[in-house]
Amino acid sequence: MNIIIVGFGTVGQSLAQLLAGYRGFLKKAYGMVVKVVAIVDSKGAAISQRGLDLSLVVRYKREHGTVAKVPSIGSEMNALEVARSVEADVLIEASPTNLMDGEPAMTHIINALRLGLNVVTVNKGPLALAMPMLKEMAEHRKLALKFSGTVGGGLPVLAFAKECTKGDRVVKVEGVLNGTTNYILTRMEDGLRFEEALAEAQEKGYAERDPTLDISGMDTACKLVILANEVLGKRVTLRDVRIEGITGIKPEDIRMARSAEKAVRLIGVAEESGVFVKPLTVDQSDPLAVKYTYNAVTLTLENSGRHTITGKGAGGRETATAIIRDLISIKERIVRV
Amino acid sequence: MNIIIVGFGTVGQSLAQLLAGYRGFLKKAYGMVVKVVAIVDSKGAAISQRGLDLSLVVRYKREHGTVAKVPSIGSEMNALEVARSVEADVLIEASPTNLMDGEPAMTHIINALRLGLNVVTVNKGPLALAMPMLKEMAEHRKLALKFSGTVGGGLPVLAFAKECTKGDRVVKVEGVLNGTTNYILTRMEDGLRFEEALAEAQEKGYAERDPTLDISGMDTACKLVILANEVLGKRVTLRDVRIEGITGIKPEDIRMARSAEKAVRLIGVAEESGVFVKPLTVDQSDPLAVKYTYNAVTLTLENSGRHTITGKGAGGRETATAIIRDLISIKERIVRV
Repeated sequence: MNIIIVGFGTVGQSLAQLLAGYRGFLKKAYGMVVKVVAIVDSKGAAISQRGLDLSLVVRYKREHGTVAKVPSIGSEMNALEVARSVEADVLIEASPTNLMDGEPAMTHIINALRLGLNVVTVNKGPLALAMPMLKEMAEHRKLALKFSGTVGGGLPVLAFAKECTKGDRVVKVEGVLNGTTNYILTRMEDGLRFEEALAEAQEKGYAERDPTLDISGMDTACKLVILANEVLGKRVTLRDVRIEGITGIKPEDIRMARSAEKAVRLIGVAEESGVFVKPLTVDQSDPLAVKYTYNAVTLTLENSGRHTITGKGAGGRETATAIIRDLISIKERIVRV
Repeated sequence: MNIIIVGFGTVGQSLAQLLAGYRGFLKKAYGMVVKVVAIVDSKGAAISQRGLDLSLVVRYKREHGTVAKVPSIGSEMNALEVARSVEADVLIEASPTNLMDGEPAMTHIINALRLGLNVVTVNKGPLALAMPMLKEMAEHRKLALKFSGTVGGGLPVLAFAKECTKGDRVVKVEGVLNGTTNYILTRMEDGLRFEEALAEAQEKGYAERDPTLDISGMDTACKLVILANEVLGKRVTLRDVRIEGITGIKPEDIRMARSAEKAVRLIGVAEESGVFVKPLTVDQSDPLAVKYTYNAVTLTLENSGRHTITGKGAGGRETATAIIRDLISIKERIVRV
């Protein structure tokens, strides 16, 4: 299986390292041989139809800031030019997220599908803005469009919802989908004010310098869009989500909840009647009342009750494992067809 | 797909009702048409090669205590005689659990495999006592042996461990696998003594009149054996598990844990170095610190961290959905072969 990696930040580099280290395991366990034929970043590309030396490319990226500097295989080509010039089966989209227009990821994905490439994306921007269209485009061309890493990082939320609910029907999805806001809410339970908790989250590297996307609920909403489409078959985008973030939460709200053995969590909810993100009060014994940077997703099923999957939803290496999961399922699909 | 149900208590009856109610859904979603050709209980059987009228059989079972009384199709045949006399693809073992010698379920399963039937069991006795042997027997005959309902009831613990960990390696399994003991421990956190918490659990129907199997840790150990074999590929039985229950836990232990923001939970652990059941102290923020009758299973993966699945692990209808999940996977297998 020949792959192109577009976007070579933390996740892309973790993927390269995992693929190098797991070559033997992936071949033995899944009969899968992955050859990375190109890696593209914002300044250029490194290309080798025979397969790149991944540790070499990672080293040059770290030392020179771009893969374009790798001697003899470095190039100034962009993603589209690369996709046209190499033979590949899968394009992996791992460039930075942009919720305004989804670019450049949107163009990368659309071009890849047009060129007949399967796509794995860990970038939720294009999906949040246009998931029904992108899925249709892939289905129409009989190509795979996979995105495990967009929800829960390494936590297999989507695989869980797809593979573990056979014979029953999911009627509702609820999720604590953003570790930053959950950390802030948990620390407010410990007595901190919002600003203090946010500053601490920034210090620890859990929150960005500009935390708007997290605390406004936007990041949660993006992931919820993906869940609503994939798990409930709803055709929705970010515009369909009513969003309320955590900036309005007062210390009194948290205290009152706590004294009633409850907890305030920022929860995304998708069900028949709608899709929304909102701070909600849940029992402390509810599996959704996870603490600190944990994520949790609860599926309500018609007959078998509420099932929750929980874990820390972030990290480069963790998200890279989600990409490998997607590659395995594409491989199984290619073999079947 | 023709099936025989052996054992017609809560789970068996729930299964019959689900199959009747979900006929259209199962056909449409999975192309699966299930015909129940025989139901066996301890006093006899109801048999119809054309397919039983399930609501009729359930009614007779409830009114007369046995399916043997159903007019014209009732019979005094036992499970083996039935399996020999009908044409079936799958035998479903749902008789009461026995941890001494696994009977009568052990014989039902072995006979079914000998006769060329696939097996779904929700009875953990035979697996706890002889899982490596039974799995080998099924594999040797190229038959399916499925047991989703034995761990977590309707919570898809085994499917999660199998389907959602592709491309990574599970190195450790930890589980809160018994709702009764977890209820007792949680109520002790609320200030009750062990005896009070146990009495309350019995009153609420969470604990049996004889709670030995639960509080001794035996029930947890049985489920752990199944997880260790299935998820970690260990060849172990109940005899290989070091077991410590919750009867030795003092209110002071619970109080001390609580004051340190920790919680005592009865946890089954399977890893490279061994398999054991023991009350352990975990952080209150750990996803294993579930409360009341919740179950939780945490998988530790080499690259993607700790993933936890949580839900209420009991209930007839919930466990019956696990059987349907198993039937779907057998159906997919039959079609593939």
